[in-house]
Amino acid sequence: MDLESKLSEIGKNLRSSLIRELLKYASVPGSISFGGGVPDPETFPRHELAEIAKEVIEKDYKYTLQYNTTEGDDELAKQMVKLLEKAYGITGIERENLLFTTGSQQALDLIARIFLDKDSICIAEFPVYLGAASAFRINFPKFETIPLQDDGMDVDYLEKKLKELDEKGLVNQVKFIYTVPNFHNPAGVTMSLEKRKRLIELAEKYDILILEDDPYGMLRFEGENLPSLYKLAGPDRVVLLNTFSKILTPGLRLGIIIGRADIVRKATLAKQAADLCSPSLNQRIAARYLERYDLFEQLKPGIELYRKKKNTMIKALEENFSDIPGAKWVNPQGGLFVWMTLPEGFDTMDMFEIAKEKKIYYIPGQAFTVDDSVSTSMRLSFCLPPEEKIIEGVKRLKEVVVEYGKKKGLI
Amino acid sequence: MDLESKLSEIGKNLRSSLIRELLKYASVPGSISFGGGVPDPETFPRHELAEIAKEVIEKDYKYTLQYNTTEGDDELAKQMVKLLEKAYGITGIERENLLFTTGSQQALDLIARIFLDKDSICIAEFPVYLGAASAFRINFPKFETIPLQDDGMDVDYLEKKLKELDEKGLVNQVKFIYTVPNFHNPAGVTMSLEKRKRLIELAEKYDILILEDDPYGMLRFEGENLPSLYKLAGPDRVVLLNTFSKILTPGLRLGIIIGRADIVRKATLAKQAADLCSPSLNQRIAARYLERYDLFEQLKPGIELYRKKKNTMIKALEENFSDIPGAKWVNPQGGLFVWMTLPEGFDTMDMFEIAKEKKIYYIPGQAFTVDDSVSTSMRLSFCLPPEEKIIEGVKRLKEVVVEYGKKKGLI
Repeated sequence: MDLESKLSEIGKNLRSSLIRELLKYASVPGSISFGGGVPDPETFPRHELAEIAKEVIEKDYKYTLQYNTTEGDDELAKQMVKLLEKAYGITGIERENLLFTTGSQQALDLIARIFLDKDSICIAEFPVYLGAASAFRINFPKFETIPLQDDGMDVDYLEKKLKELDEKGLVNQVKFIYTVPNFHNPAGVTMSLEKRKRLIELAEKYDILILEDDPYGMLRFEGENLPSLYKLAGPDRVVLLNTFSKILTPGLRLGIIIGRADIVRKATLAKQAADLCSPSLNQRIAARYLERYDLFEQLKPGIELYRKKKNTMIKALEENFSDIPGAKWVNPQGGLFVWMTLPEGFDTMDMFEIAKEKKIYYIPGQAFTVDDSVSTSMRLSFCLPPEEKIIEGVKRLKEVVVEYGKKKGLI
Repeated sequence: MDLESKLSEIGKNLRSSLIRELLKYASVPGSISFGGGVPDPETFPRHELAEIAKEVIEKDYKYTLQYNTTEGDDELAKQMVKLLEKAYGITGIERENLLFTTGSQQALDLIARIFLDKDSICIAEFPVYLGAASAFRINFPKFETIPLQDDGMDVDYLEKKLKELDEKGLVNQVKFIYTVPNFHNPAGVTMSLEKRKRLIELAEKYDILILEDDPYGMLRFEGENLPSLYKLAGPDRVVLLNTFSKILTPGLRLGIIIGRADIVRKATLAKQAADLCSPSLNQRIAARYLERYDLFEQLKPGIELYRKKKNTMIKALEENFSDIPGAKWVNPQGGLFVWMTLPEGFDTMDMFEIAKEKKIYYIPGQAFTVDDSVSTSMRLSFCLPPEEKIIEGVKRLKEVVVEYGKKKGLI
């Protein structure tokens, strides 16, 4: 059978995530990887989770080993309501405002399915979280990307773009504005309060939904918490996506959609067709964990660990790259990523060949574009390597940059 | 915000699964439900799974609590290769032929995504497993349904239909023939060996893929195992879907796609966008379970339990319905369902109102159509209620049928 001729349009257009392809190299012995955005497994409360897992299988087996409702675990929902209040000051959440998903990737996929058609316009940040881009792309929308600045999305640019779309009669086709306001993946930046307010005003003016993706919000090392868009604008304007991957463990694959009841209902119906339900077991484990432990206390050592690692990376970058004019990096207040930009002329994807030789891995900025365009930037993740490896890795990266720069006559 | 105007075509067309809506009534006190196709939780090896869960979280936390590859657990893959050989005599399976999914619902969804467009034709059995229909429907294909007979799909009808489509120049748009060959859900029937061979011949002749969904194959109470379509025709013609939901526990949400490497690769890329990966924890629990225990031995008491319950239901049907001319039912050789058909004029959806009053629940045949057409049939699941409830439930069902039949002047 000739597969190609049988595939759907989606099937024909699917392509592998660049990150997943590149990370295959990271397992070579002697490698140092700034690639994956995966949490340090030493931050996982494994003893507590192991005890809980045993208990909920033994005692709640009629629930934990059985099919679940598509909506997910009511006990986890209760805990989530408390957590949203404590972490974000968000109140007024009812059961019908919550849907548990198989990781936040599924949340992105479900939202994309219920909103995006071929003639839809999807507004995203540039650079964009590539998991979101791949979920949206399945539905073949048009993308409009809004550059990120040090304090988040360039809302002036957004305003201009929306005005243009309005003048062309296209603004109704904009289905949502996708943003990662805190410790952006990959850009590391956080949207200022002023910009949050302006983003909401613009969304109100043009009657557009905001899709707020906040996997890292609780991983702040320094600076003040800023109110979430959801808290500022409410469910009529914002759908908030969250996940347990960065605050508890990714292994449970638990994401959550928080939004207006009718939107959550549609996402629930889409989930029915997509995977029927997420595992009862995993949801109940998370519920019991939140019931018994103070998540914020438990998070503190992990946050402290990431803060130290981030500072180590920033210091190493300062020490190694201050003599490369035009090289710059974002110093994030939280999250897992430093976004580094090299001078004009560098192509971090092309440079990856040298990085492979020197066994230092990063994610080229090209991975975070919607159109595979060349990029002078790269994402450096500090969460997984120990501090001495971060220092050594940045040294190697310097060698890579110098070698590539000389080869191309850029430095 | 007016949601309706913002939704995608998919979003607008989503509808709730009839089963899920109807099952809400089944929690009313005093109810007897033949509704859900959920396994009896007493068949779950909870003590073993509890121990394993604790152990793999404590010891393998770097794996079980972390992100997984999209392809899934290699250790589970090894066990699956052994299981496929032991259960089905299927050999020659490599890692690249396997993809673990979030339940077999996701397997159906991924296959639908990579194959079905609006102008695609999807051949399915009638009645059809409604989870499959809902996954396929998302992509708006045209359906051609082939009636089921006591020995499976009416292959003469299929031949006629394929010939017609060929004459109209439409046969290339047929993407796959979907079938549940063993103990069909909902129809309870099993496809004979002769029909399996003819189905394969027809699929070869018209170069069409067969999508073989076999959640119940290992739950045979009586009769001889028949070779799977995958074993008979190989991966170039058949994609086999399987699941741990009925042989171990649905709570883990573990399904599997077994197929040609290029098809599995496309499904893997679709899964990357859909949920990135299924939980590592759940996959490793299943892997360890299969490593340590003989699944076939473990399944025996469960199969014996279902066999008894099935016999109890068949006997109760014989005792209660022999005086209703035209009432008939399929006596399944395995699985979880009896399919009962009432005389011409009955509408089991309409009759459901009386069933609700009498607190006996079944799934109206209408739920298993692709076009919501009226049905004289209903699915009776015997897996969950204890035997005395099965007897009492069939008595109530008789009262429902008599009351409805008299009201409508049918008996």
